[in-house]
Amino acid sequence: MNREITIQPLTAEAFAPFGDVLDTEGAPDKMINAGLCGRYHDRARLDFGEGRAGISLFEAQARSLPYELTLLERHPEGSQAFLPLTGNPFLVIVALDEGGSPGTPRAFCMAPHQGINLHRGTWHGVLTPLFSPGLFAVVDRIGPGANLEEVFLDPPYTVVP
Amino acid sequence: MNREITIQPLTAEAFAPFGDVLDTEGAPDKMINAGLCGRYHDRARLDFGEGRAGISLFEAQARSLPYELTLLERHPEGSQAFLPLTGNPFLVIVALDEGGSPGTPRAFCMAPHQGINLHRGTWHGVLTPLFSPGLFAVVDRIGPGANLEEVFLDPPYTVVP
Repeated sequence: MNREITIQPLTAEAFAPFGDVLDTEGAPDKMINAGLCGRYHDRARLDFGEGRAGISLFEAQARSLPYELTLLERHPEGSQAFLPLTGNPFLVIVALDEGGSPGTPRAFCMAPHQGINLHRGTWHGVLTPLFSPGLFAVVDRIGPGANLEEVFLDPPYTVVP
Repeated sequence: MNREITIQPLTAEAFAPFGDVLDTEGAPDKMINAGLCGRYHDRARLDFGEGRAGISLFEAQARSLPYELTLLERHPEGSQAFLPLTGNPFLVIVALDEGGSPGTPRAFCMAPHQGINLHRGTWHGVLTPLFSPGLFAVVDRIGPGANLEEVFLDPPYTVVP
């Protein structure tokens, strides 16, 4: 069984089953500030269930390729958006659900200045910066309950360029 | 009357009357992802009134200093967070409310990798990137109503380094 995953570019179409790509591709929805600013309006399908929205900052150690993928997780109670604050690309690993477990993972590389929003319940790896500092803002659910399921992958997958 | 405003560094203490500074100053609230990622948890006082949270992207033209400040605005129905996606600093201009009008403005320069969250109703200038691309994510209220008050400043203020 092939346990090697090749990284694909992140496009809205390819990522649609997992979440939203947050970028300024195409024309803005409206111009504001006397024409000096384009607003790409309301681009994430946010869902916080019985909780509320919060903004947290994450600072993660940068990883290198090939990357050994040993864990996937999902948040059954809410969406989770990742907004890199550095202009550097991050690796995004996701999987479709197959009867309560993750299917074969897929790996995407965010372009500089892109963000993503994982829809509620999407299986994903921990967000993986490829450059230091691995700094990003996270918009996710604040509320009671664990809101976390984890699946360990044995043998692991290997993510390659 | 002095119409010149000198830019100050952005610190949580100085900015407290206006909003939250979103950065990784100090220790993380918890370590996640097997110790490889620090989570600075729930750092913004979000308030969307009768609306809901949304994530939009803004792409603004970069400005240079001295900057002529002709307009302040506020959003009476919700908070508004600004998360630069570039690692470059932005200029933030805010003012206390004095009986329904903005008082003397203050100007802050965000350090690289900082974000801010303006509390509901805080008078502010349009967010002013100092480098191109002037790209940032905005977490603000999606909902009915104008949610905007504007005050034109005549004569303008001049923001200087």
